[in-house]
Amino acid sequence: MTTATLLVSCPDQKGLVAKISDWVFSHGGNILHADQHADSTAGLFLMRVEWELDTFDLAKAEIAPTFEKLATEIYAKWNIQFSDYVRRIAIFVSKQDHCLYDLILRQRSHELSAVIPVVISNHPDLEKVAHNFGINYHHIAIAAENKREQEHQQLAILKQYKIDLVVLAKYMQVLSPDFLTRFPQVINIHHSFLPAFAGANPYHRAYKRGVKIIGATAHYVTDELDEGPIIEQDVIRVSHRDSVVDLIRKGKDLERIVLARAVRQHLQNRVLVYGQSADSGLGLRTVVFD
Amino acid sequence: MTTATLLVSCPDQKGLVAKISDWVFSHGGNILHADQHADSTAGLFLMRVEWELDTFDLAKAEIAPTFEKLATEIYAKWNIQFSDYVRRIAIFVSKQDHCLYDLILRQRSHELSAVIPVVISNHPDLEKVAHNFGINYHHIAIAAENKREQEHQQLAILKQYKIDLVVLAKYMQVLSPDFLTRFPQVINIHHSFLPAFAGANPYHRAYKRGVKIIGATAHYVTDELDEGPIIEQDVIRVSHRDSVVDLIRKGKDLERIVLARAVRQHLQNRVLVYGQSADSGLGLRTVVFD
Amino acid sequence: MTTATLLVSCPDQKGLVAKISDWVFSHGGNILHADQHADSTAGLFLMRVEWELDTFDLAKAEIAPTFEKLATEIYAKWNIQFSDYVRRIAIFVSKQDHCLYDLILRQRSHELSAVIPVVISNHPDLEKVAHNFGINYHHIAIAAENKREQEHQQLAILKQYKIDLVVLAKYMQVLSPDFLTRFPQVINIHHSFLPAFAGANPYHRAYKRGVKIIGATAHYVTDELDEGPIIEQDVIRVSHRDSVVDLIRKGKDLERIVLARAVRQHLQNRVLVYGQSADSGLGLRTVVFD
Amino acid sequence: MTTATLLVSCPDQKGLVAKISDWVFSHGGNILHADQHADSTAGLFLMRVEWELDTFDLAKAEIAPTFEKLATEIYAKWNIQFSDYVRRIAIFVSKQDHCLYDLILRQRSHELSAVIPVVISNHPDLEKVAHNFGINYHHIAIAAENKREQEHQQLAILKQYKIDLVVLAKYMQVLSPDFLTRFPQVINIHHSFLPAFAGANPYHRAYKRGVKIIGATAHYVTDELDEGPIIEQDVIRVSHRDSVVDLIRKGKDLERIVLARAVRQHLQNRVLVYGQSADSGLGLRTVVFD
Repeated sequence: MTTATLLVSCPDQKGLVAKISDWVFSHGGNILHADQHADSTAGLFLMRVEWELDTFDLAKAEIAPTFEKLATEIYAKWNIQFSDYVRRIAIFVSKQDHCLYDLILRQRSHELSAVIPVVISNHPDLEKVAHNFGINYHHIAIAAENKREQEHQQLAILKQYKIDLVVLAKYMQVLSPDFLTRFPQVINIHHSFLPAFAGANPYHRAYKRGVKIIGATAHYVTDELDEGPIIEQDVIRVSHRDSVVDLIRKGKDLERIVLARAVRQHLQNRVLVYGQSADSGLGLRTVVFD
Repeated sequence: MTTATLLVSCPDQKGLVAKISDWVFSHGGNILHADQHADSTAGLFLMRVEWELDTFDLAKAEIAPTFEKLATEIYAKWNIQFSDYVRRIAIFVSKQDHCLYDLILRQRSHELSAVIPVVISNHPDLEKVAHNFGINYHHIAIAAENKREQEHQQLAILKQYKIDLVVLAKYMQVLSPDFLTRFPQVINIHHSFLPAFAGANPYHRAYKRGVKIIGATAHYVTDELDEGPIIEQDVIRVSHRDSVVDLIRKGKDLERIVLARAVRQHLQNRVLVYGQSADSGLGLRTVVFD
Repeated sequence: MTTATLLVSCPDQKGLVAKISDWVFSHGGNILHADQHADSTAGLFLMRVEWELDTFDLAKAEIAPTFEKLATEIYAKWNIQFSDYVRRIAIFVSKQDHCLYDLILRQRSHELSAVIPVVISNHPDLEKVAHNFGINYHHIAIAAENKREQEHQQLAILKQYKIDLVVLAKYMQVLSPDFLTRFPQVINIHHSFLPAFAGANPYHRAYKRGVKIIGATAHYVTDELDEGPIIEQDVIRVSHRDSVVDLIRKGKDLERIVLARAVRQHLQNRVLVYGQSADSGLGLRTVVFD
Repeated sequence: MTTATLLVSCPDQKGLVAKISDWVFSHGGNILHADQHADSTAGLFLMRVEWELDTFDLAKAEIAPTFEKLATEIYAKWNIQFSDYVRRIAIFVSKQDHCLYDLILRQRSHELSAVIPVVISNHPDLEKVAHNFGINYHHIAIAAENKREQEHQQLAILKQYKIDLVVLAKYMQVLSPDFLTRFPQVINIHHSFLPAFAGANPYHRAYKRGVKIIGATAHYVTDELDEGPIIEQDVIRVSHRDSVVDLIRKGKDLERIVLARAVRQHLQNRVLVYGQSADSGLGLRTVVFD
């Protein structure tokens, strides 16, 4: 069964649920899931609708142009995804393999509906892991003086493999604003409970502060380091018995799970980013339609 | 702002989201929240819609009769609640006061949109607590030989106070099927993670089994003890350092929070009970539209 | 059964567990609990020992002077508490009553082994709550220009009631360094997962940042705002459906539980503060012997 | 640094902490960790002591015979492990690979201090996974009529590889009492929050019951199915949105983490099994010295 999923955000007004579900129904679509949210601070209406395409009277190519009319009427930002389009993920790694293995194994066991044709790394260490699973591996070392060129090479690879989503699976480099302008769809896992311990060495700093709980945060990457919209977070209890090494070990379980959940939600078109309003003081934030 | 909330369950079919949201919209209602769920095992569609009444073109008294037409068409079970109707709760207790205090204080701080005109107990102990907050207290002792009559007296009190919901806040008596037939709207807190440790003395049994986590469960009461549809559960970690007394103490925090969440969800018309199908083997279960 | 509890911290060296438990045993004490921790970063050994006094061959008044000899030998900081000494708590509040009720009710149900003779507030609002439970209430308004004098009055009250511990139960004022020098034993509840959202309005800032989990932190108060050693933290999941009002409501449950746990651990002499070493970069931190 | 770890259980009496730590100290051992617990229901004292061997005046071979004298005096059950002895694990699997991968990867990243020389399965499916990591794989199909012989073959393999611990990593067969008599050191992961949903198909039964939280339990295997002493449990929240397939997916994360924690605790000699007393009604239970 093929489905279409529509994500919409627009200024809140009366009748939007009815208007949008009506549009689907009037074209013969059977709504499987519909969820919406009104953010009164931002004055926005946000909706996710998923419907069966079998009985829909519009061909795939006609759907977007046809919806455009309603979208214009309600001043909406929107996008539509089809369930039979298999997204293509590039995983960026450095030396740690736990998130890489985790994503690959989840993809292999059909938890993640996507393909992973390529792994890109600033180190050669994890080539064997990628190759074991038949995935291409590109080693692109990054230094301060060649970062610009190396990122161009990374972008060329993303183009070559027709990548839809980059996942930073413990990639210990900061992507430049230029990279993000050219390829904005990037999910990162940060090994702290943001906004606590943004930046380098979060586990060491958590240890020094003597916290009783540590966390991990998956977020979309923006120009401001560790300030991107949060998709998912989770935590685990620690105690004085845990050294920094223990925090790192416990954190690895969090990183795996939090990153995998975020990627899965993204692949199912459940994440809608909005916000960034000077008036309300809101930062970029997400609705995760679960 | 007054709102109406509609809870619907009916056999699943195409176009239900559009039909129902259209019905609201066509009468001038602005949908604030709409959420739905399709249970494929039970073959059911379940929906919750909340809309503003200010601009609705039907008077309150006309809403149910008017919706009845659509309901019949889609073979729906349904009910409608209005946000300006303040529900009336009777709390049943025995000797423990922690859930009683908790519910009263939440009601006082506007977390629970309801009034609590009466507390009923099989013991005299908590009369002072009720009176401190200006709540009437009825002591109705229960013995095997007078249970029937005493329940009749309880039912008379529920009628006298026009009670909509009974909350068993650590009431250590089992309500008879006869009571439940006459007054079916009852929420109970059970001090275990059901279905583990149904029945008596769950903390003692949890201790003896050596579990590493204990729980609490809020559920609607049915004729089968501890088998009613679950509204909410939560857990807390325990260790060998915890004696039975510690389990009881930790459990009290769970009981308070789990019961309060369930009552709050119920009062906001977020809980829809369905299931009980011999074919699918499903028991009675809930959708909690959060 | 009366017990003594010894908390010791000293430079780590060989044989400390044996030395200390031997000292107890050689005086006829039966050790009920012994736990220790070595912090290799700080180079410290930390221990908690609790033993029965019935068979101990030293009178209470002799214990400290006698232990002093061993303590000097191992360069220890230490203190001893007796289980039959009932500690005296002053609760500081502003306008919110949830933590105040919670602490009083736990004290009444014997979860907290202490007495609460007095509540001090910068507002008159909660006087009735205190009086309901037979607790004295002192309203001491605080303004920028009279803070010094008002704190002197607070300190006089603490002296008058022979207070051992001050608990800031949502007291919306900052205690001055002068106050803390004169009365250092103060536990505070901060309504965020520190170090995230230290300072004012944590729930509003958490909302604006779009976090998926919120927390609360109980800590000893030091001169640096929200930087004191953490005793306990806990968290709860939130979503886009939660407004700031919902965060505040959910947070209240966290605040209650986290503060109560910290106070209980403190009253059982389970919390040992150490750290603050320029060399290691460690901040003040706690061992909580559970 | 090589250490020895002693686990002791004996009838509770005065002076045990001092006696045992004295014994270590008198032989020149530096205690790194000491933790103990008194179970008043069972009347037992349980202790774990870990000390450095470098300065110990007994050779490894002399330690047990020397301690025997003290052990007899206090009627103790006990065992001693040395940190430089690397334990040998056999993993039993059926068709699911997630726990197998997880244990292997944790072993590779030094989270589990052990070697895994062999995987045994009643199915051929996971041979490639084992071989990828250079681990031998034995396929031993099990049918009702050949179970006895096949178990004998399994036992022969355990002997051949000098296995110390068997981990059932989603092995969908029940080990016979005979197997367990010959090889009692077996850890299993059960995919429910025991004692809820013991036996077959826990996720399906959890779905039918409509629980709001699911769990996983790691325990030592005994003759009574799913009744062995619990080492570790954890849970995750589910909702009406989760189908059985979702429960299985979410449960896999729990299974991985709970099993890995239990195996790790076991390998660090942190788990002491005791209990099974007809008088107290206690079942077999664990102290996990963390």
